[in-house]
Amino acid sequence: MQLLKDRIVKDGKVRSGNVLKVDSFLNHQLDITLFGEIGKEFKRRFADQTVTKILTIEASGIGIACIAAQYFNVPVVFAKKNQTKNIAGDVYTSQVESYTHGRIYDIIVSKDFLKPEDKILLIDDFLANGAALIGLINLIKDAGATLVGAGIVIEKGFQDGGKLVRDSGVRVESLAIIDSMGTDTGIVFRD
Amino acid sequence: MQLLKDRIVKDGKVRSGNVLKVDSFLNHQLDITLFGEIGKEFKRRFADQTVTKILTIEASGIGIACIAAQYFNVPVVFAKKNQTKNIAGDVYTSQVESYTHGRIYDIIVSKDFLKPEDKILLIDDFLANGAALIGLINLIKDAGATLVGAGIVIEKGFQDGGKLVRDSGVRVESLAIIDSMGTDTGIVFRD
Repeated sequence: MQLLKDRIVKDGKVRSGNVLKVDSFLNHQLDITLFGEIGKEFKRRFADQTVTKILTIEASGIGIACIAAQYFNVPVVFAKKNQTKNIAGDVYTSQVESYTHGRIYDIIVSKDFLKPEDKILLIDDFLANGAALIGLINLIKDAGATLVGAGIVIEKGFQDGGKLVRDSGVRVESLAIIDSMGTDTGIVFRD
Repeated sequence: MQLLKDRIVKDGKVRSGNVLKVDSFLNHQLDITLFGEIGKEFKRRFADQTVTKILTIEASGIGIACIAAQYFNVPVVFAKKNQTKNIAGDVYTSQVESYTHGRIYDIIVSKDFLKPEDKILLIDDFLANGAALIGLINLIKDAGATLVGAGIVIEKGFQDGGKLVRDSGVRVESLAIIDSMGTDTGIVFRD
C-alpha cells in the first residue's frame, strides 16, 4: 500500500534494536484519515471472504480494527491483556510473550463473543515475531470458529512471525512489509 | 440519547458492587454501527466548538474516540497506562486510581502530541468517580492546551465524578446518565 509506505518513510523513526517508531500516526497519535484508507484496503484484499467478526488485541489494534469494521459491517472484539473484575464467567485464554515489554502475559476473550459459527478476520498494527497473532489464532481455535485471515498494517519481514503464521496455513495480508531497516540505511520494503 | 439508553436496558447487565456490564456492545465486543451514532451525537453536541484533537485513554475509549474522530476530522491521541520501551523522550504523566482494578497507575502522553495550540475534546466510555477523566484533564493542563469538553458514553450519576468535573468548570456531555441501578430495581436514567 503505497500511501502507507510513503507515510512510514516520512514519519517513521528507526531506533536501535529494530524498533520502528510510528507513534505519530499509527499507535499513540492515530491518523484517522489514514486508518480509513487502511480499512478500505483490508476490505479490498478480503473482498472474496465472508467475515462475521473482527478480532484484535488491546491497545493499538483497536482503532484500526474499528475503522476497518465499518467496511465489513461487522462488530469488533478485542482480546484483553489483563483480567479485570468486569470479565466474569468463562473466557478463552492464551499466553503471549511480549517482545516490547519483555514479559509473558495472558490474553483473554469472553466465550460469549467467539462462537463456532463465527468467521474471524484478525487485524493488528504490527507483525514481528508473531507472538500476539499466534495467541489470537489459538483463541479462535479454542472457540472452534473459522479463521478467515489476518490483516496487518506493518510486518517486520526480517523477523520470523510472518513466515511462521503463513506456513501454518493462515492467509496473512500485510500492507507494508519491511525487509530491512537501520538508523543509517533507512527502510527497505518488500516489493 | 435514546438509542443508547434502549441498548443499555436491552443488553446491559447490572452486577453487585454497582458494576454495569456492557461488554457485549461497548467495551469488549464493540458495536461499530452504534459507535457511529455515538460519534454523530458527540459531533452534534460539540458542533459549536473548534476541536483539533480527541484525547482518550486505553483501552476501551479508543474505538469510540476513533469512530467519533471521523465526524470531527481530527486525529486521536490515547493516553497509555504503562510506559513501554517505545515511548522514549518527554512525556506528560498523571496518576490515576482505578476503581475497577483497585490499584494506582500512571497515564502517559508524549509531549509531541499535546501542544499549547491544541483544542482538546476528551472522549471516554464511562464516567464514575472521575479518576481517569481528571487524570486526562491534568495532562491537558500540563501541556497548556485548551480543554473543549468531555464526551462520555455512560455516566454513573450516583457517583461523584460528573459533579466534580462539572464543578471545576469543564463541560461534560454524557449520552446516558444513570441515576440508580440495582439487580432488582433495574436501571433508572436521568431525564
